[in-house]
Amino acid sequence: MASIDSLQTLLVEELRDIYDAEQRLTKAIPKLAEAASNSELAAALNNHLAETQQHVTRLEEAFSDLDETAEAKTCDGMKGLIKEGDEHAGEDYDDPGLRDAAIIGSAQRVEHYEIAAYGTAIAHARLLGLDEVAQLLEATLAEEKAADSTLTQIAERVVNLQAADPGTGGAELDTRL
Amino acid sequence: MASIDSLQTLLVEELRDIYDAEQRLTKAIPKLAEAASNSELAAALNNHLAETQQHVTRLEEAFSDLDETAEAKTCDGMKGLIKEGDEHAGEDYDDPGLRDAAIIGSAQRVEHYEIAAYGTAIAHARLLGLDEVAQLLEATLAEEKAADSTLTQIAERVVNLQAADPGTGGAELDTRL
Repeated sequence: MASIDSLQTLLVEELRDIYDAEQRLTKAIPKLAEAASNSELAAALNNHLAETQQHVTRLEEAFSDLDETAEAKTCDGMKGLIKEGDEHAGEDYDDPGLRDAAIIGSAQRVEHYEIAAYGTAIAHARLLGLDEVAQLLEATLAEEKAADSTLTQIAERVVNLQAADPGTGGAELDTRL
Repeated sequence: MASIDSLQTLLVEELRDIYDAEQRLTKAIPKLAEAASNSELAAALNNHLAETQQHVTRLEEAFSDLDETAEAKTCDGMKGLIKEGDEHAGEDYDDPGLRDAAIIGSAQRVEHYEIAAYGTAIAHARLLGLDEVAQLLEATLAEEKAADSTLTQIAERVVNLQAADPGTGGAELDTRL
């Protein structure tokens, strides 16, 4: 690999890493959505899948703005997070609510990875005066934060209640709140 | 592996995963600190290493509160993040400021992983009425968030400026702000 000789080269490396991560997620999210029992959780994951496909497109626009080829570089961080998510989703649970709670935990780790990765790349793009690139990345970052927040709401409102009281669908606990 | 039959069993699995992650970090952070050129960044990483050792101890207290053995379960997410951080720190950079910017990016991905992981575990502990466990985890979560925020400050105030203007130590850009 060529040496990293400027902040712009570092930014391009970062975008290649995120580009790989987003592409991996377009394959990983459907598996999590399929493993989810709660319909609201499955819908939120499928909705975020559509956004993730858009994130891939935005990165391609960013590469084009930078006159760089849209090229992915293996993102070991996301590889590990997806492996962990697959394992959590595939474990043996006595109640689907428990699996859903574990899926939310995995998905939020993924969202936080992306929040950190886009945050760094945006700071570097802004410092380089690459405002169009920064705006593309900021649009995606806002969706990653919203997805994380939606997952927290679904956990608090439905899934964790069911997980705390397996077999009831969370109904008993619901009435106590 | 035994099946996960309750939210408390799921919480214990989560804590075993985080316990592995924190132990891996006690070995990984010194390597990042050693690779850092900026003294403030190296000091922040070394300070967080001391906190991380305390996070391991708090998890052992949590296991004890739960009458569980302190046992780690391979955390593939953190394994991937550390591999990525090692690669970023070890690449060929023309300027130490560029390496420092990459190190901060890796360290913030790690912090965000932990913020998500502790956030999920705290929600589960609170729902189970395990307030002492929740308090231990909340103390650590506050330190992870503070570490993330310190890294952002060092990036914005010093490291990114040097990275944007390699060879100057950021001095020229500093005077423009």
